[in-house]
Amino acid sequence: MKKEVSKSNVTPWEVSGKINYERLVKDFGVSSMPTNLIAKTKNLHPLLRRGFYFSHRDFDSWVKDAESKKKVSILTGRGPSEKMHVGHLVPFLIAKSLQDKYKCNVYIPFSEDEKYFVKKDLGFEEAKKFTEENISHIIALGFDMKKTFFSRDFNDPELYSNSAKIAKLITYSEVKAIFGLKPENNIGWSFYPAVQAYHILLPQLKKGPHKTLVPVGIDQDPFIRLTRDIATHSSLKLNKPSAIYSKFLSGLRGGSKMSSSSGLETDLIFLTDTQNEVKRKINKYAFSGGKDTLEAHRKHGGNPEIDVSFQYLKAIFETDDKKLSKIEKNYRSGKLTTGELKAYTIEKINFFLKEHQKKLTKARKDAKKIFS
Amino acid sequence: MKKEVSKSNVTPWEVSGKINYERLVKDFGVSSMPTNLIAKTKNLHPLLRRGFYFSHRDFDSWVKDAESKKKVSILTGRGPSEKMHVGHLVPFLIAKSLQDKYKCNVYIPFSEDEKYFVKKDLGFEEAKKFTEENISHIIALGFDMKKTFFSRDFNDPELYSNSAKIAKLITYSEVKAIFGLKPENNIGWSFYPAVQAYHILLPQLKKGPHKTLVPVGIDQDPFIRLTRDIATHSSLKLNKPSAIYSKFLSGLRGGSKMSSSSGLETDLIFLTDTQNEVKRKINKYAFSGGKDTLEAHRKHGGNPEIDVSFQYLKAIFETDDKKLSKIEKNYRSGKLTTGELKAYTIEKINFFLKEHQKKLTKARKDAKKIFS
Repeated sequence: MKKEVSKSNVTPWEVSGKINYERLVKDFGVSSMPTNLIAKTKNLHPLLRRGFYFSHRDFDSWVKDAESKKKVSILTGRGPSEKMHVGHLVPFLIAKSLQDKYKCNVYIPFSEDEKYFVKKDLGFEEAKKFTEENISHIIALGFDMKKTFFSRDFNDPELYSNSAKIAKLITYSEVKAIFGLKPENNIGWSFYPAVQAYHILLPQLKKGPHKTLVPVGIDQDPFIRLTRDIATHSSLKLNKPSAIYSKFLSGLRGGSKMSSSSGLETDLIFLTDTQNEVKRKINKYAFSGGKDTLEAHRKHGGNPEIDVSFQYLKAIFETDDKKLSKIEKNYRSGKLTTGELKAYTIEKINFFLKEHQKKLTKARKDAKKIFS
Repeated sequence: MKKEVSKSNVTPWEVSGKINYERLVKDFGVSSMPTNLIAKTKNLHPLLRRGFYFSHRDFDSWVKDAESKKKVSILTGRGPSEKMHVGHLVPFLIAKSLQDKYKCNVYIPFSEDEKYFVKKDLGFEEAKKFTEENISHIIALGFDMKKTFFSRDFNDPELYSNSAKIAKLITYSEVKAIFGLKPENNIGWSFYPAVQAYHILLPQLKKGPHKTLVPVGIDQDPFIRLTRDIATHSSLKLNKPSAIYSKFLSGLRGGSKMSSSSGLETDLIFLTDTQNEVKRKINKYAFSGGKDTLEAHRKHGGNPEIDVSFQYLKAIFETDDKKLSKIEKNYRSGKLTTGELKAYTIEKINFFLKEHQKKLTKARKDAKKIFS
């Protein structure tokens, strides 16, 4: 069932194919996540301590300031979409975990405009209407609402003047080269890199120069690089933002990235899925690293590296390291069957979603207040 | 003294050379101003009834609605510059004259962003600081402040969402072709046509679809054409804006267009010039259509068509048609000398500026309130 695409493609607007993350570290010119840094941050979310965030730019200097109680902050955004799925959780879980540990501000802009410019058939009102639903899910994750700041691009009075200031520093040929823009793309799209840089610099534009961190998928590095290039310009005088880069959480069928744009409901677990939907999807679609027959599985064992259920447990749903380690060992040895692994994964995901959906009712009320 | 440039160039960002207006009507595909329309609007400012506004798009349908007391409005903008000169008055004098006659709303956005994007060395704060001074001069012209609406691009909360809506309808290759954008231009500049279209549609975005008129130099027609193309799109559903196109008021030395960007103080009369400065500038620099000697002048007469003083009187400063006609006749016959014509022009300009500068003190106070 796993898609076999030999050539991979990783740009801010497309991720496809089988991804070689070591190769990406080289291609993008980022740094591998150093183990001593992970040790330092060991009380953090599994996504960080288990290597899902596999590379970075200047994360060490951000941690240094955070550890010495200097002002630091986090920026992560969201291009609002109709329904949020489990893959969308990745940067927010890390942001919340770092906020819990370092009590720092988190800024979350909603880039309704990017979606609008890039998706040909997405209408203006349609692009706007998903923001409120998306923000509810993010609030429900438990951010400290006194230290978390939301904004939306189509209703941010400071966006244009700041983005314009930045836009003057970026030529069309630069964005064309970095993002592969085509002449037939609309002029909103060619301006958007300035808006994205504004997002990344938002914490510093609000609170003055300090160390900021952007947890983000590796595909977004071109935006980070561009923003780092201009941050210190004399018209801005800000610090270069730090970034940590995640791998992509795969779709159920083991594709390169869980993504709504594939349009395949059979590849996604939504945050609003019912317990039965999760059960059905995992059982029916989750790509298995087990052997074809129970006999062969018992004899040769399964491969957790390519098993989607195991990967979901490892990234998000099994936070207990000892339990995860035992599952991995037993699956590899063949003691644990695919059916048992899936049953456990369903239980863990459903526990997470039940708690999440419980908090969602209040979060929706809070969301209404924010943009009213 | 007159610059002889054989090849003319007329784009929104450059006007140079000797301009053949009949040719422009053809090149731009606009319509010549019909005489019956001028007759209908005969109580209006000399700029209109003496043919300075020489061409149009759909002016007739705007006049029809205005005459039948339907809602109509006017849009004219200003790219704020350090000092306003006499050439800058042209669209505002017409806008005020049409407002006086038809009691309609006038919208005046200040495009600080355009100046900022286009002028390489113009800083962000510098680009912003001219707006308040410029607005004072416009207020001093006597607009009905209850029907006149000012906005500035770097502080207009509705600008970005509206411009983004428009930007989705315009491709980079279109703006490249229309405005001659180069890859080395910044991405603010490539987005700006969407902002300009937003300005042109501003009256309708505020008050719903109706007939709007843009009095503007013929060099700005590409913006009008682009905006007319998108106005009726299903995401906007607005009327195509009408436009009237002016010739360029020449600089003192008879160049194609009085323009601060030439940087030649000897070519410009500023709205803040003293009576003596005006006297000195007209006497020393104003290109004369008279003959080289008094004897030759008396015998062969002067040429008012190329005489800058006469052109200033005709466009703005001599509003009495009978007096202007007499001056033209006497200058052509040689009865009126260049010295006498200049003396009269100095008197008329100084009368205008004295009145203007008197109103400026109060206008500056009003301006402060508008953007505070």
